[in-house]
Amino acid sequence: MTTQQLTQQIFAKKSFLCIGLDVDLNKIPNHLLATEDPIFEFNKAIIDATHDLTVAYKPNTAFYEAYGLKGWMALEKTINYLNQKHPEIFTIADAKRGDIGNTSAMYAKAFLEDLAFDSVTVAPYMGKDSVEPFLAVKNKFTILLALTSNEGAFDFQTKDSNGKELYKQVIETSKTWENAENLMYVVGATKAEYFTEIRKIVPENFLLVPGVGAQGGSLSEVCKNGMSENVGLLINSSRGIIYASSDENFPEKAREEALKIQQEMAEILS
Amino acid sequence: MTTQQLTQQIFAKKSFLCIGLDVDLNKIPNHLLATEDPIFEFNKAIIDATHDLTVAYKPNTAFYEAYGLKGWMALEKTINYLNQKHPEIFTIADAKRGDIGNTSAMYAKAFLEDLAFDSVTVAPYMGKDSVEPFLAVKNKFTILLALTSNEGAFDFQTKDSNGKELYKQVIETSKTWENAENLMYVVGATKAEYFTEIRKIVPENFLLVPGVGAQGGSLSEVCKNGMSENVGLLINSSRGIIYASSDENFPEKAREEALKIQQEMAEILS
Repeated sequence: MTTQQLTQQIFAKKSFLCIGLDVDLNKIPNHLLATEDPIFEFNKAIIDATHDLTVAYKPNTAFYEAYGLKGWMALEKTINYLNQKHPEIFTIADAKRGDIGNTSAMYAKAFLEDLAFDSVTVAPYMGKDSVEPFLAVKNKFTILLALTSNEGAFDFQTKDSNGKELYKQVIETSKTWENAENLMYVVGATKAEYFTEIRKIVPENFLLVPGVGAQGGSLSEVCKNGMSENVGLLINSSRGIIYASSDENFPEKAREEALKIQQEMAEILS
Repeated sequence: MTTQQLTQQIFAKKSFLCIGLDVDLNKIPNHLLATEDPIFEFNKAIIDATHDLTVAYKPNTAFYEAYGLKGWMALEKTINYLNQKHPEIFTIADAKRGDIGNTSAMYAKAFLEDLAFDSVTVAPYMGKDSVEPFLAVKNKFTILLALTSNEGAFDFQTKDSNGKELYKQVIETSKTWENAENLMYVVGATKAEYFTEIRKIVPENFLLVPGVGAQGGSLSEVCKNGMSENVGLLINSSRGIIYASSDENFPEKAREEALKIQQEMAEILS
């Protein structure tokens, strides 16, 4: 997928919503537990109910790995379902990987080629040669952790690094890497005041924004400070949408929650 | 496993070697490709040939994820084989994970409880609440990336952060986290001069040291600067041992390479 295609989808759907598919068997409706693959059945129902309101889906790999083989199989089925049924939707493997060069290349193969996600999240701590193998995959995006939405973001990311905060140092340095045009960045909504600063460094790159809703971030604040000419934002919501109900009506309730956000987004875009 | 048990094993075997099980189907002997599970057969042969010379095995999860379901199954079989046959050997899931709290808890469950590794490597970028869920698992170790063995280590890790290099900031800060006694650190052998500095901050914690051999680091230099009273070092070698031969004699050749390192270690320990 290209940035242009993503932007076109955003304007067509009047939405820059990303739905996080973080499936926890303790939280999904009981009646699904009797099915052969509860995780996939849950995802399929959420996708069927929300695909016209969202431009991206983001399974966090931790939730799948926690169920071992069964979990990995559900992840495969979910991405295959998305790629076959809704190839226009942007897919994100929220894996937060990163290793020495030849090892990062294995992760890039796993997520961007074999599973065929459009993008993967990557941690920057190990620097350039740990990220470039992801950037090397054509027509795919690498979403680099910059400023995350958790408390621990203040432990290192906002500390001064060579004269500027580490997260700024990370974004600036990453712009010099090979195929840097394939970069997006994770920036938490809980720190909306930082978006203005970030837009000075990367005026156009897409930002993946967790932390709206459950984690307390405000959509309008983020848009005011972070929106670029081509929108440039993917706002993620996970729990607020997918666990809106724990009854058999969960797809309808998830759709209601997604619709609320999409309508707010349509207003902002107009 | 406790630190005392690990140290006892080190003195009993006169070895502080860790063997990296980074299995690449393009590099393993051809005759294994005809078996039902070539990755596991390869690992089993390496383990059978080297378990008395090494105190730890470290599969890097990237190499398994790159083969999807088959890979994940081979990882499960490998850790089960180790836990059943050689429960005294320290096992490391080299996964370099790290996410917001509830998500890190899922990774901790996957690697430390379900797969029952003794330890897992974790990236520090997201700070305290991304690491503490790993530290919370009793009798297990969290191995935090501090100073890695790749070129990219100089992009951020050695940059000044609030008056000291980021990797020192990471180690110092991590000492204040809950259950910090369960921490070990990754420190690359290619930067042996840094070990003296690191030992001032953490005189006793174990350091997992990649980069000896293939990546050019020197064992004697690392030991001179980095050894603690209870040894405190696990020196990893992957390619140099497991790919010593691509013929049917690969277990014997792997043993020969492991033996060379173990003998050097026995000399250092005496």
